[in-house]
Amino acid sequence: MNIEKYTEELITLRHYFHQYPELALQEVETSAYIRKYLEKLGYEIVPIEPTGLIAELPSLRNREKLVVLRAEMDALPIQEQTNLPYASVNQGCMHACGHDMILAAALILAKIVAEEQRMQENFPVRLRFLFEPAEEIGEGAKRMLQAGALENPKADAFLMFHYAADMTFGMAVHQGQASSMINSMQIHVHGKSSHWCEADKGIDAIYAAAQVISAIHDLNESFGKQHPDAGKYIVGTGTIHGGEYTNIIADHVVLNGNIRAVHEETYMALEHELERNLQEIEKQTGTQIRMEFPKDPVYAFANDEELTETAKAVGAEVFGDKFVLEGEDELFLSGDNAYRYFRETRGLFTVFLAGIPGENHPLHHPKFQLDERILPYSVEALYKIITTL
Amino acid sequence: MNIEKYTEELITLRHYFHQYPELALQEVETSAYIRKYLEKLGYEIVPIEPTGLIAELPSLRNREKLVVLRAEMDALPIQEQTNLPYASVNQGCMHACGHDMILAAALILAKIVAEEQRMQENFPVRLRFLFEPAEEIGEGAKRMLQAGALENPKADAFLMFHYAADMTFGMAVHQGQASSMINSMQIHVHGKSSHWCEADKGIDAIYAAAQVISAIHDLNESFGKQHPDAGKYIVGTGTIHGGEYTNIIADHVVLNGNIRAVHEETYMALEHELERNLQEIEKQTGTQIRMEFPKDPVYAFANDEELTETAKAVGAEVFGDKFVLEGEDELFLSGDNAYRYFRETRGLFTVFLAGIPGENHPLHHPKFQLDERILPYSVEALYKIITTL
Repeated sequence: MNIEKYTEELITLRHYFHQYPELALQEVETSAYIRKYLEKLGYEIVPIEPTGLIAELPSLRNREKLVVLRAEMDALPIQEQTNLPYASVNQGCMHACGHDMILAAALILAKIVAEEQRMQENFPVRLRFLFEPAEEIGEGAKRMLQAGALENPKADAFLMFHYAADMTFGMAVHQGQASSMINSMQIHVHGKSSHWCEADKGIDAIYAAAQVISAIHDLNESFGKQHPDAGKYIVGTGTIHGGEYTNIIADHVVLNGNIRAVHEETYMALEHELERNLQEIEKQTGTQIRMEFPKDPVYAFANDEELTETAKAVGAEVFGDKFVLEGEDELFLSGDNAYRYFRETRGLFTVFLAGIPGENHPLHHPKFQLDERILPYSVEALYKIITTL
Repeated sequence: MNIEKYTEELITLRHYFHQYPELALQEVETSAYIRKYLEKLGYEIVPIEPTGLIAELPSLRNREKLVVLRAEMDALPIQEQTNLPYASVNQGCMHACGHDMILAAALILAKIVAEEQRMQENFPVRLRFLFEPAEEIGEGAKRMLQAGALENPKADAFLMFHYAADMTFGMAVHQGQASSMINSMQIHVHGKSSHWCEADKGIDAIYAAAQVISAIHDLNESFGKQHPDAGKYIVGTGTIHGGEYTNIIADHVVLNGNIRAVHEETYMALEHELERNLQEIEKQTGTQIRMEFPKDPVYAFANDEELTETAKAVGAEVFGDKFVLEGEDELFLSGDNAYRYFRETRGLFTVFLAGIPGENHPLHHPKFQLDERILPYSVEALYKIITTL
């Protein structure tokens, strides 16, 4: 495998995907481009409505092990502000989560495998590519799995990979927990309106909401002390809106936030504790408080031990001392609908570190940037992981 | 004076004004109607731009004492929901503060005085009517005074009257403080955005805002205990808005509320204490907090002692045991730009109680209603106060 000769095309592909981002479930051009690219290489494609693709080389069908690799296709509803020459030309839509890099890497990996197999016919595993739509809205994995992404035959391993901007050049794999459990909660506080001149006739929903915020703050402080094995977690409120008039006691406040935890048990305990706190505040203030979860939670998942060992060996080989085996404490408290794949088979989540010094814009930021020079290294590492399994 | 013969016209006038309400500084039809009505009675009118009117009978110019009576003309930006047969026909505009009743009473009072003076030529005082625009937005009194409302000659007394819905049939006058000092404050809490996954990089403006709300709550509880002579007061927050995304730490929260106190010293002390609390919360949370007062305060005012005695006597005569002399503790914590008149001369604020049992909608409510049967009694009381001065 000679990765150098693919470097230019990796960059070209990445620029193409970056320039033409498409929102979740609308990845029409992206999907068509990928399909055409892969069919030319001899891949057989199963389209998954509306834009998903499952791709395999027919000549690898007789291999013993099925390894499944996921690449996400969707971009975000963000107006890009990078001023890059290949910045998004699609108004209000941007690849600000690295899926452009993922797609470029997956296509070149597919090309390398196809070319090798055509020449030597000895590629060791059956490799299946999943081009997943709508990862950002938590819709894609469900649809891919319903279409049998990990079946026929039962997959031996599931691989996923991201590019991160918070550290420069390297590769990171988490030992154990690899992604967190999260959900968005909405807390409604209902009081009773009255003119502030007749405060005794009202029940102030804003005051009760302040107690809720303080309780969440205290829960963050105390829970870890009371439960030393809780792992990383956070309960955070991102928005608060309440009241209509400056001189009227507010009868309704809405808080929106998230509960996040590396361990599902911690998540469940936090949700339970918060619910208990809300009931206490209800009693103290005379308000009615309701916590809702508009969506299903995104569950946590962990890297398989054996796959982690493989990744460690490959990481050391390709990245040397720039490979990092991270613990739970380094885990970012984010979630991924890929937990659904991890429930079906053993999995590995590899992170390629592609931060640019001085460009510290986080994922989903309009100025988010990645160092694309990581691309050939990442393809090499993925190739080696797959062929070592 | 025979009030019975004016009762029907009082009701007719009130229904007319109620049906055709106009917003502050747009009281064009209202003002034209009043002007025509008064000119027909022989009043001389000085128009005050844009809609204000000052009206006097020329034949009373030689009287020794000038008594000035104010009637407000403006309605509120509220969509009426009373279903009354004479409900507002002007979309989104309603007399929900009793100015319709005030105008009807003032016009009939003007008519009685004009008719008496024409017949007997012995009305005892020079009576000046102020038809004030824009009371609700605190603009009217300033304009009327700039136009010389209490000058040429210097007014001996200023009279104002309201109709209240919180008690049924009667008349109330406050001994001492008759209206409160109030102002609207806006509190901006500035933190620092960050993804909740990297909470240590952010400064949570919502948490700091919760501390502000708690501090205001505690100030309400503690200030009166620490200052037994503080009188009635309240600091209240009516709206809170902050944050843009559920998963991002909010960098800005805006609170809107009021500070209200019967005594100006209490108001000033509360504002000072609140400012001190905000500075403490700034230090504790690392946020930046700024309290703004978009408008000038409305100051408190007190009833003149001698005028209060007159009102007591007249109240007992007209309303018997339904006259109430109220203390500071019964004072509603609202303000009125009429404080400007009270700074220039001695004044009296009379409240006619016109609540309807079972209809407990407060001032400025879309279902606010008044018992108009109080109208003839109120005109009689005003007439007697004026002629007793």
